[in-house]
Amino acid sequence: MKKFLNNVDDVIRESLAGFTAAHRDIVRLGEESKFVRRRELKKGKVALISGGGSGHEPLHGGFVGHGMLDAACPGAVFTSPTPDQMAAAAQSVDTGGGVLYIVKNYEGDVMNFEMAAELAEGEVARVITDDDVAVEKSTWSTGRRGVAGTLVVEKIVGAAAEQGRNLEQCRALGERVNKATRSLGVALTSCTIPAAGKPTFQIGDAEMEFGVGIHGEPGRRRVPLAPARGIAQQMAEAIGGDFGTSRGACLLLVNGFGGTPAMELYLMYENLRAHFEKQGFSIARSLVGNYVTSLEMAGCSATITLLDDELTRLWDAPVHTAALRWGM
Amino acid sequence: MKKFLNNVDDVIRESLAGFTAAHRDIVRLGEESKFVRRRELKKGKVALISGGGSGHEPLHGGFVGHGMLDAACPGAVFTSPTPDQMAAAAQSVDTGGGVLYIVKNYEGDVMNFEMAAELAEGEVARVITDDDVAVEKSTWSTGRRGVAGTLVVEKIVGAAAEQGRNLEQCRALGERVNKATRSLGVALTSCTIPAAGKPTFQIGDAEMEFGVGIHGEPGRRRVPLAPARGIAQQMAEAIGGDFGTSRGACLLLVNGFGGTPAMELYLMYENLRAHFEKQGFSIARSLVGNYVTSLEMAGCSATITLLDDELTRLWDAPVHTAALRWGM
Repeated sequence: MKKFLNNVDDVIRESLAGFTAAHRDIVRLGEESKFVRRRELKKGKVALISGGGSGHEPLHGGFVGHGMLDAACPGAVFTSPTPDQMAAAAQSVDTGGGVLYIVKNYEGDVMNFEMAAELAEGEVARVITDDDVAVEKSTWSTGRRGVAGTLVVEKIVGAAAEQGRNLEQCRALGERVNKATRSLGVALTSCTIPAAGKPTFQIGDAEMEFGVGIHGEPGRRRVPLAPARGIAQQMAEAIGGDFGTSRGACLLLVNGFGGTPAMELYLMYENLRAHFEKQGFSIARSLVGNYVTSLEMAGCSATITLLDDELTRLWDAPVHTAALRWGM
Repeated sequence: MKKFLNNVDDVIRESLAGFTAAHRDIVRLGEESKFVRRRELKKGKVALISGGGSGHEPLHGGFVGHGMLDAACPGAVFTSPTPDQMAAAAQSVDTGGGVLYIVKNYEGDVMNFEMAAELAEGEVARVITDDDVAVEKSTWSTGRRGVAGTLVVEKIVGAAAEQGRNLEQCRALGERVNKATRSLGVALTSCTIPAAGKPTFQIGDAEMEFGVGIHGEPGRRRVPLAPARGIAQQMAEAIGGDFGTSRGACLLLVNGFGGTPAMELYLMYENLRAHFEKQGFSIARSLVGNYVTSLEMAGCSATITLLDDELTRLWDAPVHTAALRWGM
């Protein structure tokens, strides 16, 4: 294992310390490093909290700030945070508007956020994201997995909360965005969890994992590595097919898993764009980069969110976080 | 070689097409894909142009936009662009204020930008960056190499040009920022150039390349992999030592080479911060991420720029590019 670290047990703590120091104008660290929260809170605003296993950075800590999340709870690598972390985050950032938990659909996360909701003193609601069309159920989830589309839910609901919508409105909007969102990922290599010290899975030099999950868990099938346009076509067909006959203006997010260079992500964007347009999607907004990662895994995912005028305005609204910043 | 691509010869063209489509609100592609330029030009402003081999993305195309570059010329992977590309870019974006070329100190780049300057019809000046303290001369450079500090020069001079400074003022400022900037990089793995199809260099499982260049070219020495705090200490001592007795407020840029996840970059930031502060530097501004990369190489570099009030204001000034965006 070749990684920049001191002790395996200190990786998350040291990394969080660096993150909050580098972005101290935006975030600060909660007590006992249980969560990352916004430096400035807005009284009465619905508080948006997400979290999940570490190793997907910048998700979720990098999305804490104006126009997006109020707090993020990082678990150990690829391991759900505890209900205790989530409840502490809620107590810290709920300023009277209630708390909306945004939870990726993995069993551990869903259960722990449920327990956190029971511990809560204020009003609590939740949105569960399940945008991954690869599988109907997986090793770690009942039903579809929540993957890169979670970013879109956090951005759009974050903007709505900033504009003063109440808890029920934010929850309903989150469900609507999740329903309008589909993703699919492809991995070329595995990643290595620091505590494991060796790759999560083995994959041949001429193979790829089609429909991979963001922890490297298996997807639809192990297939031969193909040219980019062939991969893009399969991804676009899987996503487009899952939308049924729904077409129209959309956001295309091409998300790197951590180990794929920008040059290849933009090449994939170009190939995906062509295939989605051929299917009748009209790409109105784009985002390309490493946003929902699996440590240093090589690979990428495509996410489409169907946009109407309201969702487009909320996507475009100002955001000021470590990883997404525009309009301010 | 496991990469997302169709034909090796089309990688740059397809990637540029994707880049300019995804960011069509900011950039457009020049004739024959010779350069990427700002969508909107400002009459009479000094035009900032940079360029170099591809494979370092987002450098330089990702830094084209308001408050930074006017055009960027991408060569083949790790190969200088041609004088023809640079001259075409100059003709396209010079609106009467003259052209400032910002050139990383590599022999091919310096020679080709020199030839481009001779072809120019308008007024032309140049700044050569040579911030890498690793070596006094290298395989590909006479004198020190220009590496991640180039980003800082482009950002600060970009802000000054936006504010109306003339060509000579921009050139002098660029030289001043370059002189106030020092970098050093460490690689854990090699990268693979698509046309080569195999890793640029071999490195053992327990080794790292200390002082590596951004093309994977050798640095100071091949040493055993060490804990992050030891690596950070060596990097901070090399950079701090090179500054002599100069200390004070600074920018710390922790730059990933492409294959190192955010978790490790922030962990390195935390360790570097501690060592630089111990040496008497006061970190006033921070930037952490993949900005000046070597395709998918695992590793990172540290850059320190000493800041005064003027440089701090120019660093903070609004910027709107694909890869750096704040204040607007």
